[in-house]
Amino acid sequence: MTRPSTETRSKLVETARDLFHRQGYTPTGIAQILKESGVNSGSLYYYFPTKEDLLVAVLEWYRDHIGDNLIDLHCGRIEDPVEKVFGLLDGYRQLLMMFEFELGCPIGALALELANSHPAARSLILVNFEQWVDTVEQFFRAVEDRLPEGTDCRALAVHVLTTMEGSMMLARTYRSTTYFDQSVTHLRNYVDSLIAQGSTWSAPKQPAGIPESLDN
Amino acid sequence: MTRPSTETRSKLVETARDLFHRQGYTPTGIAQILKESGVNSGSLYYYFPTKEDLLVAVLEWYRDHIGDNLIDLHCGRIEDPVEKVFGLLDGYRQLLMMFEFELGCPIGALALELANSHPAARSLILVNFEQWVDTVEQFFRAVEDRLPEGTDCRALAVHVLTTMEGSMMLARTYRSTTYFDQSVTHLRNYVDSLIAQGSTWSAPKQPAGIPESLDN
Repeated sequence: MTRPSTETRSKLVETARDLFHRQGYTPTGIAQILKESGVNSGSLYYYFPTKEDLLVAVLEWYRDHIGDNLIDLHCGRIEDPVEKVFGLLDGYRQLLMMFEFELGCPIGALALELANSHPAARSLILVNFEQWVDTVEQFFRAVEDRLPEGTDCRALAVHVLTTMEGSMMLARTYRSTTYFDQSVTHLRNYVDSLIAQGSTWSAPKQPAGIPESLDN
Repeated sequence: MTRPSTETRSKLVETARDLFHRQGYTPTGIAQILKESGVNSGSLYYYFPTKEDLLVAVLEWYRDHIGDNLIDLHCGRIEDPVEKVFGLLDGYRQLLMMFEFELGCPIGALALELANSHPAARSLILVNFEQWVDTVEQFFRAVEDRLPEGTDCRALAVHVLTTMEGSMMLARTYRSTTYFDQSVTHLRNYVDSLIAQGSTWSAPKQPAGIPESLDN
């Protein structure tokens, strides 16, 4: 057979990505992917001999598009790095609202669905989480001088990620942003308190010995 | 047929609960539930005409056992209410370690798997989350006088839940407690800072008018 076009490959990845996002990996059948993409099975099997190969391609797509698909879109126009962090979270909130809570974080959902059963997918999910944490860590590093001395910016970025994932989970279950907003508000309160703490001016410590000499 | 014993019913619920926990709802087949429970199909269909009926029974089991299965076990011997909150989170950490990251929060995993497709399950998942939040809210209410005035104890409990769920997700993906610990440490730092803030003694405000009369 002739080699199917790369557009055909892209069409398959895009269709599978959207179906996995909407209904999960396991419930999505090859027949549905063929039907919704309009691609024939020969072309599918040329690029993706198994459904897991398609899953890997979807996770690679997310890995390669975190910049334009997520960060640029939600943080691009924001100047302040801390506001970028919360702009990113607001992007997820918009996703919830736009699709009436049918869609959450695609990576988080696949993480729980496939953690035990698909090692190749698990390591690519991990790469996606790492990129997300890297990005948020950079935002915090840009304001490191406003945070308390010794703040672990990477651990703080991890805390933002866990708050986002847990908040998305509750929003999808409750079909409401109430708990999402409450949790993000507490996170915001925490980050604000770190900044307030970091910005408290303290008088430079006296070099040791001076009080003694004053006593003399 | 004669009515199968209630022990048979319990055996089915227990087997389904453990299989759903380990591998998810969709990948678990009726045949595997029958095989692992040792129950015959007639007895299964007597109690549970569909797999979704069994899912509902599993979620009811979690709802009815949050006390003994979770709270008493991990918080029962702890006196301080704030330590109870973190004792509960430590219980989840123990679960991760004990089963080498194969098992996470059973409710959270089902929440993401079934949010769109199973409305009956979704409302029971919601009830389970509500009970969890109720419990943690009570712990915070017990120390309300140590928190800043006007702290929303329920929203704070929600924030603990989102941190737990997100942290479990990362721990299972990374097969490591590193990110779990980092996120919970930031949560702990936040709760500690609220308590420190709530405990700051402020001089009672002067009744209005006194400074003026002093000026006279």
